[in-house]
Amino acid sequence: MTIEGIMRGKLTAPVLIVDSPENCADLRHASGFWAPDPLVFLMTNTAAYLIVSPLEQGRAQQLAKREPRRCLKIVTPDGLGLTGPRRRLLGEWAVALLRREGIRRVQVPSTFPLATARRIEACGIAVAVAQKALFPGREVKTAGETKNITESQRAAVAAMRAAIRRIRGAAIGPGGALRAGRRHLCAEDVKQEIHATLLKQGALCRDVIVACGAQAADPHERGHGLLRAGATIVIDIFPQHMAHGYWGDLTRTVVRGRATNELKRMYAAVKASQAAALGAIRPGASCPKVHDAAAAALAQRGYATKDVDGRPEGFIHSTGHGVGLEIHEAPSLGRTPGRLRCGNVVTVEPGLYYGKLGGIRIEDTVLVSRGGWEYLARCPHVFEV
Amino acid sequence: MTIEGIMRGKLTAPVLIVDSPENCADLRHASGFWAPDPLVFLMTNTAAYLIVSPLEQGRAQQLAKREPRRCLKIVTPDGLGLTGPRRRLLGEWAVALLRREGIRRVQVPSTFPLATARRIEACGIAVAVAQKALFPGREVKTAGETKNITESQRAAVAAMRAAIRRIRGAAIGPGGALRAGRRHLCAEDVKQEIHATLLKQGALCRDVIVACGAQAADPHERGHGLLRAGATIVIDIFPQHMAHGYWGDLTRTVVRGRATNELKRMYAAVKASQAAALGAIRPGASCPKVHDAAAAALAQRGYATKDVDGRPEGFIHSTGHGVGLEIHEAPSLGRTPGRLRCGNVVTVEPGLYYGKLGGIRIEDTVLVSRGGWEYLARCPHVFEV
Repeated sequence: MTIEGIMRGKLTAPVLIVDSPENCADLRHASGFWAPDPLVFLMTNTAAYLIVSPLEQGRAQQLAKREPRRCLKIVTPDGLGLTGPRRRLLGEWAVALLRREGIRRVQVPSTFPLATARRIEACGIAVAVAQKALFPGREVKTAGETKNITESQRAAVAAMRAAIRRIRGAAIGPGGALRAGRRHLCAEDVKQEIHATLLKQGALCRDVIVACGAQAADPHERGHGLLRAGATIVIDIFPQHMAHGYWGDLTRTVVRGRATNELKRMYAAVKASQAAALGAIRPGASCPKVHDAAAAALAQRGYATKDVDGRPEGFIHSTGHGVGLEIHEAPSLGRTPGRLRCGNVVTVEPGLYYGKLGGIRIEDTVLVSRGGWEYLARCPHVFEV
Repeated sequence: MTIEGIMRGKLTAPVLIVDSPENCADLRHASGFWAPDPLVFLMTNTAAYLIVSPLEQGRAQQLAKREPRRCLKIVTPDGLGLTGPRRRLLGEWAVALLRREGIRRVQVPSTFPLATARRIEACGIAVAVAQKALFPGREVKTAGETKNITESQRAAVAAMRAAIRRIRGAAIGPGGALRAGRRHLCAEDVKQEIHATLLKQGALCRDVIVACGAQAADPHERGHGLLRAGATIVIDIFPQHMAHGYWGDLTRTVVRGRATNELKRMYAAVKASQAAALGAIRPGASCPKVHDAAAAALAQRGYATKDVDGRPEGFIHSTGHGVGLEIHEAPSLGRTPGRLRCGNVVTVEPGLYYGKLGGIRIEDTVLVSRGGWEYLARCPHVFEV
């Protein structure tokens, strides 16, 4: 990867990032470096500078040597001549480097830390917030990136199979409560199964969702407590791989035992909605049109989206989002204008949420390819188990 | 918890945070809310406002009802009269709320997003970067917080025991390579053991360190590949509990088989250094003096800290850091001035790192208490295993 490879084009102004690789996917992408603490990264058209504490210097230098095409120059506060408390202030690191390199203007991400921006501006250096993504190239995945996301997606599939196996194997106790042997089967038990399976694949998903019944009516409720027969159980697994940091994303909704006709009809509508969205996915397709296709399939089947007692019900989120070094990244399959391109990796995850019925969501992650799209990893669609 | 309880005092200006609870511990502390996406939080002396997307509204309202002492008022973009694309811009959410409440000046964290600050300032509202921690009360843990950190620390102890058991049980193969049955025992195998044990305790540690030999000479190297007899293996486990989000932090260094006299002497020095630092810990103690005590114990035993070929060797990091909703938080036991208080929870983790010998670190997490300090959870000190 060269600097132009990372940028996919020329920079209009040097890019400055002050953040931790942990928080900032752009920083991980552009530097290839991981550290637990914040650091300073500067990219010009000819070089990329990483200012790290002496503690990180060794690993950073190894990276620079291992991946010479990144053109990384490793700098330390000492190397910049900083002394005293200024050695520990990231704003001072940035100012010292910009001065040394004679840079009078930088572009920064919209989330750039305010205090650091003010410190830099006070030195007469202009700080412009980039109006677009700093590294739009991230939206189009390389073969290596697709392989990494696929690896996480496969881990998600393995965990989903294990979760559904656990639910399918549960007995139905009095009042419909699911039972595993002499104990209730709870969301927490299924999550343990998911975590343990992901772990064997080298992946983690801290905020996995196993939400049953009324809980499932809220798409961000992570779920807890008793699982019941006859109610929908939304299982949303979005693991990050521990080795390379790429994510996967997969959701299935199941019912233990028999679902009511109402839930069956709702499930069929969400499945048709996903099919409609997938049918609209191809290079060049408008992102809002993919979303419209998903929404229209639901509306045609009579599923309205509206506020009930001030709370939105129906198809209340967008159809999908990009997946890569972040779990939510561009492109978005919602109302924001944009077009799909070969190499995009996106989720397709329509859902329906009604306070009285619960929630149903079906989600797969696909690669936009010349022929339209491809699954990254296949996971069976099951409903009653 | 009341607003004054969260603040431990009066605000000089309303506090504004625009971030995701995931990234921002202050936001989790002050709001008690979790969501995967960024949101807007405003705290005055009488109320706390949380602006969330309609998707999060239900859970946010449940929280406000469940914890009335937080005085949370849940607001949505619709409720602020925002329409069109402005409904999706966090800067617009903040401006609309500040205008509605007639607020002309806010204080923000130093990491406040630059683009949002500029948008707010353009509306004639002053944005001041707080010069101190927004919620200094976070440094002094409540009994409930200490209980949570202890839970994570206990998980770390369980995982450490499992890791050491695994290393102790390994056979020593040709050339000193550790073997588990017919396979090599690798850092990855020990990490799996750690992850699996943490999981059973409801905790996760994505970046666990199991670093052997030369790898251990770099305190932030996470470690990989073959483990060897006779070399130090640094095991650093810092789990976050999945239910409440508090962290623990624990490090042990072991050698499988026999350590050289040189390594034994080095281990004894680090152990003495930890004892010296612990001996200096009490309410009112100066943080740099705790660090000095740790450093002096090492220097007295002849362990120098200096640059070798431009790379720092010896005791190259601070003695410890606070632990709570963040893995690294105030107070710091390094050169930054400050005094310990009853209720601080800090790590005490001196270490020695030499390119040729490897690294040794011993770390426990303790509560500063009236009598001096207490372990949150005890973990045996072992070296040769």
